Amino acid sequence: MRTPLPDDFAPPPTPADLARWAAADEAARPARLARLRARLAAEGLDAYLGVRPENSRYLTGFRLGDGEDRVAGNSGRFLVSGDDVVVLADSRYTIQAGREAPGARVVPVTYDLAAGWAALAASVGARRVAVEAGFVSHATWVALQAAVPDVELVAVDGWAEADRAVKEPAEVERIRAACAVADRALATLLPEIRPGATESQLAWRLETLMRTGGAEGLAFDVACLAGPEAALPHGSPGDRPVIDGAVLLFDFGARVDGYRSDMTRTLFVGEPSARDLEVYALVARAQGAAIEAAEAAAAAGESPDGRSLDAAARGIIEAAGHGEHFGHGTGHGIGLATHELPSLSRVAPETPLPSPTVFSVEPGVYLEGETGVRIEDLVLFDPAERHTERLTAFPRDVIVLG
Amino acid sequence: MRTPLPDDFAPPPTPADLARWAAADEAARPARLARLRARLAAEGLDAYLGVRPENSRYLTGFRLGDGEDRVAGNSGRFLVSGDDVVVLADSRYTIQAGREAPGARVVPVTYDLAAGWAALAASVGARRVAVEAGFVSHATWVALQAAVPDVELVAVDGWAEADRAVKEPAEVERIRAACAVADRALATLLPEIRPGATESQLAWRLETLMRTGGAEGLAFDVACLAGPEAALPHGSPGDRPVIDGAVLLFDFGARVDGYRSDMTRTLFVGEPSARDLEVYALVARAQGAAIEAAEAAAAAGESPDGRSLDAAARGIIEAAGHGEHFGHGTGHGIGLATHELPSLSRVAPETPLPSPTVFSVEPGVYLEGETGVRIEDLVLFDPAERHTERLTAFPRDVIVLG
Repeated sequence: MRTPLPDDFAPPPTPADLARWAAADEAARPARLARLRARLAAEGLDAYLGVRPENSRYLTGFRLGDGEDRVAGNSGRFLVSGDDVVVLADSRYTIQAGREAPGARVVPVTYDLAAGWAALAASVGARRVAVEAGFVSHATWVALQAAVPDVELVAVDGWAEADRAVKEPAEVERIRAACAVADRALATLLPEIRPGATESQLAWRLETLMRTGGAEGLAFDVACLAGPEAALPHGSPGDRPVIDGAVLLFDFGARVDGYRSDMTRTLFVGEPSARDLEVYALVARAQGAAIEAAEAAAAAGESPDGRSLDAAARGIIEAAGHGEHFGHGTGHGIGLATHELPSLSRVAPETPLPSPTVFSVEPGVYLEGETGVRIEDLVLFDPAERHTERLTAFPRDVIVLG
Repeated sequence: MRTPLPDDFAPPPTPADLARWAAADEAARPARLARLRARLAAEGLDAYLGVRPENSRYLTGFRLGDGEDRVAGNSGRFLVSGDDVVVLADSRYTIQAGREAPGARVVPVTYDLAAGWAALAASVGARRVAVEAGFVSHATWVALQAAVPDVELVAVDGWAEADRAVKEPAEVERIRAACAVADRALATLLPEIRPGATESQLAWRLETLMRTGGAEGLAFDVACLAGPEAALPHGSPGDRPVIDGAVLLFDFGARVDGYRSDMTRTLFVGEPSARDLEVYALVARAQGAAIEAAEAAAAAGESPDGRSLDAAARGIIEAAGHGEHFGHGTGHGIGLATHELPSLSRVAPETPLPSPTVFSVEPGVYLEGETGVRIEDLVLFDPAERHTERLTAFPRDVIVLG
């Protein structure tokens, strides 16, 4: 095959794209809130206390940078009632909250959320409050409960996440754009990959290409793993040099206006070994099988569960005797978070996948001390429209470099 | 004053430094564990269940990248009993855990921590377990309790954090090295700052200089804010150009072997306005007063509380009539986390600061829609040795560029 070139892939997003996406979010937010309120009403609850940054952005517009929640205190946490949206902000964030969440009431907060809880709950007339129990700390839960025993806290899990798993068109556009940024970056990097370059050098170069090629940031730290290191599914790049005659695995993603991509390619530097080619072919077959299963289901207007798509890939790897070398799930949803619903795994819920949704398909085979291969694409799955699309456009063929 | 040059500051860490620090961590870990175990024994508890990545690294050696905890499931969570250290790892992390935490027993885990909780607690003979309640989710707490009612969960907060606030010599070395990486990067950037360059461009350039100048990563996303944007204490860089005759605020830090720096400089591009110079002088005086208060206390072998050091800076800003324009605290501890104990603020505990410790001193004055000034240095505070050291070496004088 011809080695991919940068211009094989879509160009970076433009200011007009960003403006369109901002408008789309603003237009979509009332419906997002309405779905949350309908669920509150159905469960007999008055309000929803959110602490997860992705949910805050999705429902209120307020944005924290990646990892900024660790220093932001309670800023960005939010409360949605039947007719009110409150964004909490300490003095560092009040101006920003007013700009980014113009539809919300910005309420001052300190590091002591419980101290203001009585007034806050009373201000929206809440007596039974849904709380994001998977994200609020146990200490905060206990403090809120102790501060205002009259306000009942009800643990809820995955409400906003289930809604986020169903992607709006402008959300898909941003994931597609993030995929293209990553595709172009890897295509640009290919001619620079030679034995001797280190994992860290190549990871930094790939990051630079994404960050200067349309990404506002990374989806996650770039993994670049040479030879036997590729057997670590979540390994980090080090000073290890690229090895002639061995695999070189890149797992990386870009962030475009908050939305993320995630792709893995396992390349060959120098003449591949027969074993490595065999493992590659097996993983490619397994990945193709899961994607084809998704395509077939969508074409029939059907939505399988995440367990069956996992099984489509896993069955092939197990049949080849490598089941124990594929420990993780086949895929995960992606959007404002790198890992979100739905899950494609052995323990995924036996319920139909959301529609439309975007997930990764990323089986791998890991031989400790020897080699590792993973191939990962993002797939848009839209059975209602009988449509699927591989958002990652980079080829999956064997690529031999150097 | 002479404009700072890159070589005014210490060179980047060497491989020998990294090897020395790794050895120091390994040598220090038994004492860290012994202090935790002494506290467990004093409280009549059998084991400590940790979920915070910084604590896992500190006590076991296992490392997650920044933000990686969001995709790592339960990997990296750990249990310390009287004679055992367990690191949990799913299949993606088992090889890494074995390497990084050779003193620990690596136990397989899934996304369902509660499912393995009975066996895990029994394997260390735990009946009363301290749990990091400020970091474990309420949902996890409830699931563990429901899964094994016989094992009592006891909420603890800040145990490992209090220990981490007291810095070992090799920890201080790494913070100092991270400061030097940041100092050099800003000195290198200075000649490139001109009206017309955008905040985002300068932020990316400063990041590049740190990442290629000895940092393994950033401590946090670079803030570069021009003119009125500097009034946002946690603002993010945008496409706004540097403004002639206005302030340009950089808040940034490097990460060296896990340890972080944090500094803020407010520069002037073109002729400063009298108002901006006045605000700068006020903030510089306030910052100097807090540092001098720390120096005087250390020289006398005394450890004040974080409230009094905050008051030293705040009193000056309040006396100038700008109290309401300085909403945040004066400083925070720093180390494996960007914000950690001790706190220098109006609500800091009225107990002596730990010794030796490292904290930021960063008062600011923010005039919405007009301007903002913050000056931030890291200070090593060691009253036992009657010693302080400004780890940030970059000058605090007014610097006019362009």
